[in-house]
Amino acid sequence: MKPNRTMLKIGELATGQDLELPIFQFKPDSISGPSVYIQANVHGAEVQGNAVIYQLMRLLEDSDVRGRITLVPLANPLGINQKSGEFTLGRFDPITGVNWNREYLDHNIDVATWYEQHAHLDDEALVMHYRTLLIERCHSRLVSDWGVTTGHHQAVNLQLMGHGADIVLDLHTGPKSCKHLYCPEYDAEAAKLFSIPYTLFIPNDFGGAMDESIFCPWWQLSEHLKTQGRKFAVPVSAFTLELGSQEHIDLEDALVDAQGIMAYLSHRGVIGERVEPANMQRFGCYLKDYKKYHAPIGGMVEYLAKVGQTLEAGQPLANILRLDHYGSEQVLTPLSLPQDCVPILHFASASVYQGTELYKVMTNVFEV
Amino acid sequence: MKPNRTMLKIGELATGQDLELPIFQFKPDSISGPSVYIQANVHGAEVQGNAVIYQLMRLLEDSDVRGRITLVPLANPLGINQKSGEFTLGRFDPITGVNWNREYLDHNIDVATWYEQHAHLDDEALVMHYRTLLIERCHSRLVSDWGVTTGHHQAVNLQLMGHGADIVLDLHTGPKSCKHLYCPEYDAEAAKLFSIPYTLFIPNDFGGAMDESIFCPWWQLSEHLKTQGRKFAVPVSAFTLELGSQEHIDLEDALVDAQGIMAYLSHRGVIGERVEPANMQRFGCYLKDYKKYHAPIGGMVEYLAKVGQTLEAGQPLANILRLDHYGSEQVLTPLSLPQDCVPILHFASASVYQGTELYKVMTNVFEV
Amino acid sequence: MKPNRTMLKIGELATGQDLELPIFQFKPDSISGPSVYIQANVHGAEVQGNAVIYQLMRLLEDSDVRGRITLVPLANPLGINQKSGEFTLGRFDPITGVNWNREYLDHNIDVATWYEQHAHLDDEALVMHYRTLLIERCHSRLVSDWGVTTGHHQAVNLQLMGHGADIVLDLHTGPKSCKHLYCPEYDAEAAKLFSIPYTLFIPNDFGGAMDESIFCPWWQLSEHLKTQGRKFAVPVSAFTLELGSQEHIDLEDALVDAQGIMAYLSHRGVIGERVEPANMQRFGCYLKDYKKYHAPIGGMVEYLAKVGQTLEAGQPLANILRLDHYGSEQVLTPLSLPQDCVPILHFASASVYQGTELYKVMTNVFEV
Amino acid sequence: MKPNRTMLKIGELATGQDLELPIFQFKPDSISGPSVYIQANVHGAEVQGNAVIYQLMRLLEDSDVRGRITLVPLANPLGINQKSGEFTLGRFDPITGVNWNREYLDHNIDVATWYEQHAHLDDEALVMHYRTLLIERCHSRLVSDWGVTTGHHQAVNLQLMGHGADIVLDLHTGPKSCKHLYCPEYDAEAAKLFSIPYTLFIPNDFGGAMDESIFCPWWQLSEHLKTQGRKFAVPVSAFTLELGSQEHIDLEDALVDAQGIMAYLSHRGVIGERVEPANMQRFGCYLKDYKKYHAPIGGMVEYLAKVGQTLEAGQPLANILRLDHYGSEQVLTPLSLPQDCVPILHFASASVYQGTELYKVMTNVFEV
Repeated sequence: MKPNRTMLKIGELATGQDLELPIFQFKPDSISGPSVYIQANVHGAEVQGNAVIYQLMRLLEDSDVRGRITLVPLANPLGINQKSGEFTLGRFDPITGVNWNREYLDHNIDVATWYEQHAHLDDEALVMHYRTLLIERCHSRLVSDWGVTTGHHQAVNLQLMGHGADIVLDLHTGPKSCKHLYCPEYDAEAAKLFSIPYTLFIPNDFGGAMDESIFCPWWQLSEHLKTQGRKFAVPVSAFTLELGSQEHIDLEDALVDAQGIMAYLSHRGVIGERVEPANMQRFGCYLKDYKKYHAPIGGMVEYLAKVGQTLEAGQPLANILRLDHYGSEQVLTPLSLPQDCVPILHFASASVYQGTELYKVMTNVFEV
Repeated sequence: MKPNRTMLKIGELATGQDLELPIFQFKPDSISGPSVYIQANVHGAEVQGNAVIYQLMRLLEDSDVRGRITLVPLANPLGINQKSGEFTLGRFDPITGVNWNREYLDHNIDVATWYEQHAHLDDEALVMHYRTLLIERCHSRLVSDWGVTTGHHQAVNLQLMGHGADIVLDLHTGPKSCKHLYCPEYDAEAAKLFSIPYTLFIPNDFGGAMDESIFCPWWQLSEHLKTQGRKFAVPVSAFTLELGSQEHIDLEDALVDAQGIMAYLSHRGVIGERVEPANMQRFGCYLKDYKKYHAPIGGMVEYLAKVGQTLEAGQPLANILRLDHYGSEQVLTPLSLPQDCVPILHFASASVYQGTELYKVMTNVFEV
Repeated sequence: MKPNRTMLKIGELATGQDLELPIFQFKPDSISGPSVYIQANVHGAEVQGNAVIYQLMRLLEDSDVRGRITLVPLANPLGINQKSGEFTLGRFDPITGVNWNREYLDHNIDVATWYEQHAHLDDEALVMHYRTLLIERCHSRLVSDWGVTTGHHQAVNLQLMGHGADIVLDLHTGPKSCKHLYCPEYDAEAAKLFSIPYTLFIPNDFGGAMDESIFCPWWQLSEHLKTQGRKFAVPVSAFTLELGSQEHIDLEDALVDAQGIMAYLSHRGVIGERVEPANMQRFGCYLKDYKKYHAPIGGMVEYLAKVGQTLEAGQPLANILRLDHYGSEQVLTPLSLPQDCVPILHFASASVYQGTELYKVMTNVFEV
Repeated sequence: MKPNRTMLKIGELATGQDLELPIFQFKPDSISGPSVYIQANVHGAEVQGNAVIYQLMRLLEDSDVRGRITLVPLANPLGINQKSGEFTLGRFDPITGVNWNREYLDHNIDVATWYEQHAHLDDEALVMHYRTLLIERCHSRLVSDWGVTTGHHQAVNLQLMGHGADIVLDLHTGPKSCKHLYCPEYDAEAAKLFSIPYTLFIPNDFGGAMDESIFCPWWQLSEHLKTQGRKFAVPVSAFTLELGSQEHIDLEDALVDAQGIMAYLSHRGVIGERVEPANMQRFGCYLKDYKKYHAPIGGMVEYLAKVGQTLEAGQPLANILRLDHYGSEQVLTPLSLPQDCVPILHFASASVYQGTELYKVMTNVFEV
């Protein structure tokens, strides 16, 4: 089965040129599985997700697809095309500084009032009505006499597509990073299915990112129903997959992650084939134990700790070289951390201001 | 009286060089008035506040200063020195995209619990203890095994100085802008004193900016005391002054604003002289009526509406020129607004993406 | 007569999207006048030329057009769409730093050898053969097994269109600038026709800019023929028009410059109507007398000298404010120049590093 | 022997802060060897040279130093501290776009006239007078009523120090690169001494870079003397060492290159110890055979060819992924080159515009 391609206009450049997204869809004739939405490259430099979508589409062409699957690579044309020097300045809007992955709509629904009017519905109808509400709110957000910001316009258009699906995967990368997964706590079992060694278990609240924009309204509904004595499982799943380092394309490695996604889709019944998850060790920690370490001084950085490998307390994390201090002990400052951890990612540049985020590390790591 | 000059280190560059702030202080021998903290140029391109501090210090040298006055021009050395092309890229951290004026500490104090332990204090002692709390919390925020971000480190150092004062003025500018004042609703009378024609009355909540970081904890305390039946006026004042357009220095105009600040300081008893506020009309609106208009299409913009001048509904706001559409009506799109307003500022560039914030306008304007 | 619109692809973005130029052509049925090529906005922030093309096309629609006229607004889509903060970073390629107006092909033809083989031709045939040579060299420059840089690819495509015309106008602006014209010395009479008060008379050599890329090969041919005793006037005209300040669109002022261009086109017989040049004083200087003044120290700049107005030696040019030196004489450094001049443009930002180009001024100015 | 540290002011920021260079000098009491000047990090992201200077100074401390050695790490404070997103935008002046390594003074001396007046001098005196001339010309370039640009001011200050030495090493890196050396053809033997596998033999002309600014005036003198029948070897040596990839610090690898430099200094008699060059194969090509390959289309790039490893004609160089073309053959474009080569460096980002320089490769490689 070949995917169908359409284009979606999501903006206009100063020259008047349209900004467009390519959208690929696998639509089985008869639908028996959940629907899926996958996007990549919302941060301009985080390109590997496109390669994963490429490999995934090739795998899906030969699969028994049972749910509608929508794939949007290159999801942020402004960010992807924004170069500054030899690199892509694609993490935030170059005009406003707003992170492209913090532009999604916070529905902030008064769930109690809404539920009062819909309490009579059964679960299936409840899901349908609530989903319609989310989609309508996105639509009306995009229509305003006063206009909508560039970034919000793009994000809410993506979110709209996400709300239409049962499963949402947002493909990102870190700066210099090992693979890791953002997984909401209510959906922790999913962490055993992808080909990703480290999982960050995040609370179920809205922080502005795509995955949260999708699952939070449902989790809020679920929580409210619990207070009303009605059991209602969150009916959508949404994850952010961090697929290694930015500014890097590797087709072979992309196949590994495409297969991991296939294992998850198989488990969820989106494809008919049985695809087993990779046999590998998986670890995780809670967001509160995910620590950022900031450069205590400015200088040149030699990154010593490898991402994805356990680092014991006191072991070398990095050196900061300060040639201006040659002749004193301050010329080389060895850095280490006070507790055991797994470094997950480090800063992309080898020179830092005081206070630059050097490393993000998992502490209190447990096997998943 | 000459001010005393000291330097404060607030960061380190990648080359190891210290980032420093010049701090000027007028310290009268005997203090009978409130203390004042004034900073300028936290956004790198918003330089006119430095000129205002220059003129203000010259006026203060010949004045009867009765309260301690601390002045910090050039308050963001990283942002001020960050050029990109011919302009200053000084609105946000070039690495993280975070707005330099959204880096202040949200104290988020459990006021009820704190007050339980301090309810026995009289107002003066209450102020002293609460102020000490705020300062200590800033200090401890700056000390962490895991470090502090560059922007937060700078901001909290500024905030620390602000918490030490009774009156805080943060001098900014807009992009292309007329003068306007951000004034918290509880302190609305102050709007009649500065030489500023337009005032935005803002709620008393924390949104991340310097002025809010100063007055919010006090307003929260005041609100809590009200629930306890104790009347307690917010003892600090904090304002953001937007002194015209960015990338512009005008010493004569700076004198006008310095005199406006002198009128305020006179009214508050910081200086002994009687300085009357300028005789001028002053207008304002509430934040909820301060509207942002975003470009409905991409293109070249001719800004027609002048800032600081009433624009009636339907009158020309701007034209968007789209040469690619020459030959059709779309070549020139006239823009107007559906309600009467006063344009306060517009975007700095004459070409925009769809969704770029074109104008900010006050609606439902009233005389102050 | 309506112009005909076509699109020319001149590049591809990282997302795969085509970069295209809109091209407008007035093609009279019977041609009796010289052909014209006009482009605008090769520097991304210099947008006013688009407005001039807009007004010019409206005038031409009602004119008796006798030569083919090609107009290319928005001639640098990459540069125009490249924002950095609130401004357009459009002066140089964001990856390489190369000025977009220094990417044109230096033909560097061995004129002597070429002429040996073509000496038998009459002037008209000589022009035709030489023009064909220039066009072919551009075409073959664009075809290479090793590819061509982004900027060169765009520039040579524009140059190709320019070589096809007898008259080439490249519409630019300065940063903060009065109107001025770059006019090659061999073509000095043209300076009296446009509605531009200041003219810079430039040598006839190639410095990398569009106008030079057009006229230099012809001037070299003309010079060589002179050594061979053959009188041969340079058959093409090429000028750069600097139409005020960047980041500014003004349709009314654009009409003034469109009328100035009409006067030139009328004089040259491109249009049938008689359009008189504006009755205004015009001044000029030689390139060697066009001086750049660089900031002697870093600091905040108050620009005092108005562009386009005579400034006598020793009169105030600008002030540099250095708040860190408050309390000493260095707090304010007045700048002036040692000789009479007319400031033509100044830097766009009000804060400068030591060495930033502050002003460009004409010295030894004469009436044209 | 410990080096002596001094600081040299080479500029001022907009905040007024001085830009300074740390300068380290080993000055033996009795001088019997040639003098040396070594600088690093003129391009802001090319930091590894600082680590090499660090290791080199540690080695020199224990060596028998016989010539004066001056070392300037962190030689471009503006460029090093200029971040844009997560990377260092340090290749060109952020205001002008001019490459920091193209700002050196082209002396452009009328050698014939100068030599007429100095022909009577013996070689040693000739060297001394000519060197003085070069230094004086740099000094007078820095003094001008009209000021000097920021970049030129910094570069000429560095050049001044370089002219004072017999041996000049400029430490750079490529983007993603193997180690390679720029070596002038007259000094080809030096290529066998450093620990660098690839050498680019460059003509002896001035192209704007530091090494050329040092040796070109001498080579011109030498050439002129040859025409006068006087044999005069170029008395200075100047090289650019490209020490791997930018944004990377590796102290162990820095020691390898420090030892390579020690071998060269030993060979030249700067240190008393005998240090043998590393036993390794070394290859090279001429500049005319150093080819740039530009992206034939825009898209996402998978770099396949490893730097520093021979690539046969037709073998895979890179893939360009174009997800917008999924479903057609254009989705993946394999790139290869028509001749055997050694890829030396490739672009730093994995997404490119059409025309971005993808790879630089050596062709017609020979063993050195």
